[in-house]
Amino acid sequence: MEHHYQPRAWILTIGNELLIGRVINTNAAWIASKLTFHGVSVRRILTVGDTIDDIVEALSEAVRRADIVVTTGGLGPTADDLTLEAIAAALHRPLVLDKEALRMVEAFYARRGYRLTSEARKMALLPSGATPIPNPEGAAPGAWIVEGRTHIFALPGVPREMEAMMDWVIDRIKPILPRLCVREKSLLIEGVPEAVLASLLRKAARRCPRCYTKSHPKGHETERPVVEVRVLASAGDCEKADEEAGAVLEELKRLLGGNVG
Amino acid sequence: MEHHYQPRAWILTIGNELLIGRVINTNAAWIASKLTFHGVSVRRILTVGDTIDDIVEALSEAVRRADIVVTTGGLGPTADDLTLEAIAAALHRPLVLDKEALRMVEAFYARRGYRLTSEARKMALLPSGATPIPNPEGAAPGAWIVEGRTHIFALPGVPREMEAMMDWVIDRIKPILPRLCVREKSLLIEGVPEAVLASLLRKAARRCPRCYTKSHPKGHETERPVVEVRVLASAGDCEKADEEAGAVLEELKRLLGGNVG
Repeated sequence: MEHHYQPRAWILTIGNELLIGRVINTNAAWIASKLTFHGVSVRRILTVGDTIDDIVEALSEAVRRADIVVTTGGLGPTADDLTLEAIAAALHRPLVLDKEALRMVEAFYARRGYRLTSEARKMALLPSGATPIPNPEGAAPGAWIVEGRTHIFALPGVPREMEAMMDWVIDRIKPILPRLCVREKSLLIEGVPEAVLASLLRKAARRCPRCYTKSHPKGHETERPVVEVRVLASAGDCEKADEEAGAVLEELKRLLGGNVG
Repeated sequence: MEHHYQPRAWILTIGNELLIGRVINTNAAWIASKLTFHGVSVRRILTVGDTIDDIVEALSEAVRRADIVVTTGGLGPTADDLTLEAIAAALHRPLVLDKEALRMVEAFYARRGYRLTSEARKMALLPSGATPIPNPEGAAPGAWIVEGRTHIFALPGVPREMEAMMDWVIDRIKPILPRLCVREKSLLIEGVPEAVLASLLRKAARRCPRCYTKSHPKGHETERPVVEVRVLASAGDCEKADEEAGAVLEELKRLLGGNVG
């Protein structure tokens, strides 16, 4: 049986370094893209600082509204790594020492010959009922928590570590993913300002109302505007998705006449 | 008279392209950094899609909680550019054709010899009571709206345009900015894992409890960990801010002994 319900996701990125603009939030885009191409509808991306109240508040909102919540950051050994404590507080669960998580942390430290500090042990304290997520690239395990219909995945903020754990995440949400193929097509248009293009694009987009069609102004050119039009289509099979995205762009080409770059 | 109250800011970045991970949110980091170094405390960064209800909801939350709200995206001529409509709805104000904004749009089009479409006129519809913000780099004016104690600035999503308008924004919030100098210092530490560093860092950070001190694991090195420690200090004058940030790093160096890279 086919099902096309697209689970809703919120992404919660945690860290003062994001709020002061020291770090560009590449994690959010990476996760958003990964989820989107698995048929998940990402509805909101939130960034809060390393403050327990702010994380609890954001997380409570997310759990109430989303089927999938992915958090990044705040899993490390330092005092301002508060994500698991905040998840426990938001879900009214105790933090407990997880034996499997502790083995993961111990193995990581043993491989380098470091002693296990109490700070390192902190990384194995998970909200009760959580499953630790192996981190092949770093010390801090992630955590998977199911709360009602919502899957919460807490991942580290270091991009390389987070990325290495995302396939594990996708495997766990497989049962709720829609059987959809998501495809994207784009077209570059030169010499037509976005406002002029707008009405043609609106007409062309009617060829696939379910698609996500958008124009993006490009480049620094003021004399000769360049606009990229991108169409994202999702359908039961990839051939159909390609066809739907293609139909919008073909119609746009027809309406534009010779102006396509 | 000196005043050190740090106004709270929320940044609201609007656009489906962010939620599907097609675009990395460099705007949020750029604005966050700019505000931080002007003494503003950025508390939350939110991304929502081009959906009127989602923008209204996020904006209403932001206005309730922040002194300064900066939005990016959704000011253009296309049907999915909904930011000004959403701001008007959230504040229960009508959208009105702003004469000054219309002149800005007209001038932009006249310079290129394009006719003014109805889509282009849409860019001059602002929430009643708004002041248009000149856009030296593009067609869409921004909008400045004061609602109670909250300043709302709606800026375009094209980075070059948004960046060119930010000085105008800073000028308008000057009266509520604290007389603070914000400075940052950093130190690279090699060969000490973050968990080992954590307790030393906690001790060193006590030298300046008002500072924001954080360690960032760096690089792909698994054999020889590299951690960058950064200290952000704000004080009544720059000399004092430098001194406070420096004191934390000096204490850390002392505690580490010879391990500083």
